Amino acid sequence: MSDRSATSSRASGSSWSADDLGALLSARSRAVSTGAWTSPAVPGAISLVVGSPDPTSAAAAEILEATRIVLAREAAEALDYGGNYGHPGLRELVASRIDHQPGLGYTGANVELTNGGAQGLENIFTTFLDPGDTVVAESPVWGGALRTLRSMQIKVEPVPLDEGGIIIAELEDTLGRLAAEGRRPKLIYTIPTFQNPMGISATLDRRKQLIEVAARHRVLLLEDDPYGEVRFAGSPLPSLLTLAGGEGVVRCSSFSKIIATGLRVGWVIGRKDFVDACAKMRFDNGTSQFTSRIINAYIEAGFHEPHMDRICRAYRAKYDAMHSALEESVGNRATWTRPEGGFFIWLTLPDRIDPAALARAADEEGVQYVPGRSFTVDGSCGNSIRLAYSFETEERIAEAVRRLARAIDRVS
Amino acid sequence: MSDRSATSSRASGSSWSADDLGALLSARSRAVSTGAWTSPAVPGAISLVVGSPDPTSAAAAEILEATRIVLAREAAEALDYGGNYGHPGLRELVASRIDHQPGLGYTGANVELTNGGAQGLENIFTTFLDPGDTVVAESPVWGGALRTLRSMQIKVEPVPLDEGGIIIAELEDTLGRLAAEGRRPKLIYTIPTFQNPMGISATLDRRKQLIEVAARHRVLLLEDDPYGEVRFAGSPLPSLLTLAGGEGVVRCSSFSKIIATGLRVGWVIGRKDFVDACAKMRFDNGTSQFTSRIINAYIEAGFHEPHMDRICRAYRAKYDAMHSALEESVGNRATWTRPEGGFFIWLTLPDRIDPAALARAADEEGVQYVPGRSFTVDGSCGNSIRLAYSFETEERIAEAVRRLARAIDRVS
Repeated sequence: MSDRSATSSRASGSSWSADDLGALLSARSRAVSTGAWTSPAVPGAISLVVGSPDPTSAAAAEILEATRIVLAREAAEALDYGGNYGHPGLRELVASRIDHQPGLGYTGANVELTNGGAQGLENIFTTFLDPGDTVVAESPVWGGALRTLRSMQIKVEPVPLDEGGIIIAELEDTLGRLAAEGRRPKLIYTIPTFQNPMGISATLDRRKQLIEVAARHRVLLLEDDPYGEVRFAGSPLPSLLTLAGGEGVVRCSSFSKIIATGLRVGWVIGRKDFVDACAKMRFDNGTSQFTSRIINAYIEAGFHEPHMDRICRAYRAKYDAMHSALEESVGNRATWTRPEGGFFIWLTLPDRIDPAALARAADEEGVQYVPGRSFTVDGSCGNSIRLAYSFETEERIAEAVRRLARAIDRVS
Repeated sequence: MSDRSATSSRASGSSWSADDLGALLSARSRAVSTGAWTSPAVPGAISLVVGSPDPTSAAAAEILEATRIVLAREAAEALDYGGNYGHPGLRELVASRIDHQPGLGYTGANVELTNGGAQGLENIFTTFLDPGDTVVAESPVWGGALRTLRSMQIKVEPVPLDEGGIIIAELEDTLGRLAAEGRRPKLIYTIPTFQNPMGISATLDRRKQLIEVAARHRVLLLEDDPYGEVRFAGSPLPSLLTLAGGEGVVRCSSFSKIIATGLRVGWVIGRKDFVDACAKMRFDNGTSQFTSRIINAYIEAGFHEPHMDRICRAYRAKYDAMHSALEESVGNRATWTRPEGGFFIWLTLPDRIDPAALARAADEEGVQYVPGRSFTVDGSCGNSIRLAYSFETEERIAEAVRRLARAIDRVS
């Protein structure tokens, strides 16, 4: 290519100016805010913002060994397209082992691989939702899902959570009101285990009630479960998908929190016709066979279980560090959740504390968190904040909480 | 999880039945056909269907070495989220070296990484298009793009190509007619270099005319260029983006055809505000840092240029094998294109040959191809077929063409 030929005809396009862009954008694009990837850096601050795994936790040596196995054994396949469903071996492994649903007899045919859990959600949304549709979402809930729904011009109806999960009476009220308005919601979006941002898990009773209410109102349940395997206390509960016998529930999860987010592999699992419908709505030539086969080889080589033991112990220690520091430094000036797994504690302050004043004081003390409102569509939860204990070291978590306590003191 | 708890509450969801799915699907989902990933296998047939790179061509040892470098040097970053724009190092490398646009002064800020070229297209479409919008597309063109547009309920207006690219007079006619109908198209979709399915490249004059016409009608040009680097004859021409001085063009490409499809890394490049608008429309937590950093390390280690030399020689040999076999076996019973790169030859038969009869005869002779109609929205090109020389060995390409010639004989 020569610079001369480029310059010679440049004039032909020069009538385009910066303000053309706005006129060209889709309604979807105009409806959505920029992603929350660039939270303003405060020099010297400790961030409890990011819900990423511990950066030292990933099993890099094991991932390299799995890569070596894959490229020695199946390089041609690993470096080729994988189709809309993804690598069959990993789909089988998800169904039989990683996300086994007892009693449902699922196989790889019930699994579609996705580019992480976030794309799984987007994929399910495009499969089931049209602009103007209504989704019922527990509130507070992961802002990324709300952002995706908003970009699709979906109306989100929030239903509050308590420490036992989505509040069934509130859900009934909302569904009744929507029915009276002639609006049939398409989906109920819920993270039943180690919820983001609250860290809580829905009780067994609440899970059964949720399934019963959703089935009675003919609303599909979307069970998002990226954190479920990161359990460091208590006993596992059956998934909504298992409890519902596979009916009326579509479930998604990912390897992001249990192997590595950077590999971008997640999955959708459910009744075969639901999974087929989701796989049909892929326009990206499918999820990487390279990373999928690396994960497959990593699990087959026996690296997964010891890694899970290691990271669950590590997250237990991080959780303990945060909880103890909260008890010591914050004490009865706030309440907070007691998760048995996952990455987050949800802290609630008295109503008299001004959220904006607290945010300023926290910036000055050098600690960052995510304000509660980021997880709602109705501006509620202003006096709650999400604290991630997943990413930072125990020492820095404790120091961050001491700084937070000083910030609370200054605005109390 | 216990099977008992699963069974006990199963009854609650049992009122869902298979026919609920149809009622739940989005209009998008109902509008779109299943992806073309599962072309019916004919035992013993040689397939000239798949537009995948040669399965033996990928530099597996070099990719493993790049993986080793990445996991030794930057494991924590490579295994973490990369944000909506993707790994900055690879974005810089794309702007400065892999897809350098002379005279535009582009940096990594002008590049967004995508999960392959196909997601780049989907990303651009969702950024600029709403349901009911019109896109002008050269015809025939890649069916995957047409499928994505159809799923978004976009009206596609085809403009025919000849061996020199999109036919400008036809483009003017279409744009004039649309203006008369009060329909302003948002995009013109074109693959100017080694076009899929025709293999042809737009001439320099045609490129300049296309830019001029698009600018005059204020229609954005979408330049899709996944094959441009796979050149085995002739001289490179400037991109539409370069020729237009960066105005009125958004361009996408990928590493799929030049390193490996299985890594799923592509990019969007253009004016910064256009790229920012596209990055905003990502809902998947961004492209894999792991595969992006592997590609970055692979290029930095000097593996890329020798690999390109190797594969361009290999595709030259494959192209020659197909072209020679066509000359020998098919001769003057059909015409076909003479690409200087890329993966495809486009073969056109006399009108008197029935496409369905040819397809049956080809199945019986044991050769598979993609029928021309798959690349159109108006059922044109029935008497053309796409032959991929990228995937099969030279011997099997020659044998496939002999089988095709016998099939043509049988229906002539």
